[in-house]
Amino acid sequence: MTDRPRLTPAVANIRRAVRNALRGYAAEGDLVLVALSGGPDSLALAAGLAFEAPRAGLRAGAVIVDHQMQPGSAEVAQRAAQQARDLGLDPVVVETITVEDKGAGPEASARVARYDIIDQVKKRLGASWVVLGHTLDDQAETVLLGLARGSGGKSLHGMAVVNGYLVRPLLGIERQETHDACADQGLEPWLDPMNEDESFKRVRIRKTVMPTLEAELGPGIAQALARTATTLREDSETLDALALEWAQEIVDTDAEGRVTLDVGGLVTQPAALRQRICRIVAEQGFGVSLSRAHTMMVSALATEWRGQGPIDLPGITVERAEGRILFGAAGRGHEED
Amino acid sequence: MTDRPRLTPAVANIRRAVRNALRGYAAEGDLVLVALSGGPDSLALAAGLAFEAPRAGLRAGAVIVDHQMQPGSAEVAQRAAQQARDLGLDPVVVETITVEDKGAGPEASARVARYDIIDQVKKRLGASWVVLGHTLDDQAETVLLGLARGSGGKSLHGMAVVNGYLVRPLLGIERQETHDACADQGLEPWLDPMNEDESFKRVRIRKTVMPTLEAELGPGIAQALARTATTLREDSETLDALALEWAQEIVDTDAEGRVTLDVGGLVTQPAALRQRICRIVAEQGFGVSLSRAHTMMVSALATEWRGQGPIDLPGITVERAEGRILFGAAGRGHEED
Repeated sequence: MTDRPRLTPAVANIRRAVRNALRGYAAEGDLVLVALSGGPDSLALAAGLAFEAPRAGLRAGAVIVDHQMQPGSAEVAQRAAQQARDLGLDPVVVETITVEDKGAGPEASARVARYDIIDQVKKRLGASWVVLGHTLDDQAETVLLGLARGSGGKSLHGMAVVNGYLVRPLLGIERQETHDACADQGLEPWLDPMNEDESFKRVRIRKTVMPTLEAELGPGIAQALARTATTLREDSETLDALALEWAQEIVDTDAEGRVTLDVGGLVTQPAALRQRICRIVAEQGFGVSLSRAHTMMVSALATEWRGQGPIDLPGITVERAEGRILFGAAGRGHEED
Repeated sequence: MTDRPRLTPAVANIRRAVRNALRGYAAEGDLVLVALSGGPDSLALAAGLAFEAPRAGLRAGAVIVDHQMQPGSAEVAQRAAQQARDLGLDPVVVETITVEDKGAGPEASARVARYDIIDQVKKRLGASWVVLGHTLDDQAETVLLGLARGSGGKSLHGMAVVNGYLVRPLLGIERQETHDACADQGLEPWLDPMNEDESFKRVRIRKTVMPTLEAELGPGIAQALARTATTLREDSETLDALALEWAQEIVDTDAEGRVTLDVGGLVTQPAALRQRICRIVAEQGFGVSLSRAHTMMVSALATEWRGQGPIDLPGITVERAEGRILFGAAGRGHEED
């Protein structure tokens, strides 16, 4: 019994995180797949899943994606697959894909292709859930990336614990703990050289920005950022739901196919709901994503009316007439009311 | 006419910011005071106010606070007062105070004492508004300080444009523009040596953290942080107002003076409102400020009920009985229901 993995704090914490996540979402008999890169976070997650799934009456497998973007990627994938099988996961599937960069950059293109193939595998195997190894540190880095964009609350949400069938059990677990858990269980993770490549913004955040923040603002920054993401996500989801509810009450469609909003209904809303309602109409009616500056211009038609003319925005034209805000597809020409 | 100040972009931007702020709040004949340190931001604001106030039918004066915390502070205050008079501000008042540090630290104690004396002067002079020189960079620094605390959305709000009679017209203006505006108008600002003292967290943010963020995440970080503050403040104010409204519907007080919340009313709320309602009850009923972790525990009495016992928190005890959440002052002992 000398080989038996030790139940260290790191192993226990990760198992508990997996257990809580599964308890919240998975039902008896479900197949849960771990998206496994072979890195410390997904490998620790795979081990936690292999341990917890049978105890919760679940089946557990793994999907490994070989992006073919680095020399030796096939070996990395095969090694991860072997680790998954050794952990008792079944089925274990390796998918080899070719990433086409359609202009979004190699990182983003790989991510899209990866989620796409994961979706296919999930359907093919009849899996109910796919667990992902993102940690608290990944969450903090995502918040900082969002802060840098500054596009408001939404950019600070970070990643959701659950998004459709994707579940992230480790969002409350520090990255170091996944390294520790691997070591404690005799698992040797693959260390992706891309994680050291400072041409990636995310790597610079990890290697330069976070240490600076810790040094100058005090320790616990990653935790603070992750907590912030959680509360902001709650806030924003609540406001989105309320705005959608209100929108349904004050939105109408006129004879010419324009979406119209009652000014009286709009001005009585608090600013946060008013902006969201304008964004919802643009998005759901015309597939247009309004910037904050544009949303403010539209909203001012209701709140700061002094006879402004029609506003031409990318994809839509918005104007005010007879106590209503009218949203029309761009390039239709304006009617004189 | 060679001395006539040039209308440069910086001067024009600051005047416009002051004009917009005054238009939004001040009424004909109001006395507006600028809180003047003599530093570039408040000096540029004083110049903007001196120019705009008479054109808007307002009176404009200045209040200068000598904290007596640095050698030569009396001369700094007198010099700022002279600059204010030269700009045409009237009345110009210098107040000398002694800051007592009651444990909050010298910076925070000075701030409390400063706002206190400003309030007194405002009342004595019958002023309606006090304008403060905080810039976009101050706002960004405040957001970063809040992020480091990680106490959720509230810590990221930054400073309000208007808070009671305090107005901050320059929150959309970069600090450099206040330097430029002073230079363009031949005004020589006082450069506070404390702004270079890296024992202050705020100074480290300005001198180390912000440059690192700009270098690694790209330019425009200060603007992004300031934008974030604005939208988060809107969101949170809206949720606070909604929560207060809902709280009034589901809150009651029982015969023993405990505040009670209907569980049914609480569980139907979105999480962001539920947490806020619990916080409102603790704050308004007992003057207790709940942390997020404690709020979650209270909220779980409604949403994850499995017979938990009373929860003892600093200042309050919270328990569930007969379909209600009961909030009582701490140390009353629990009743068995």
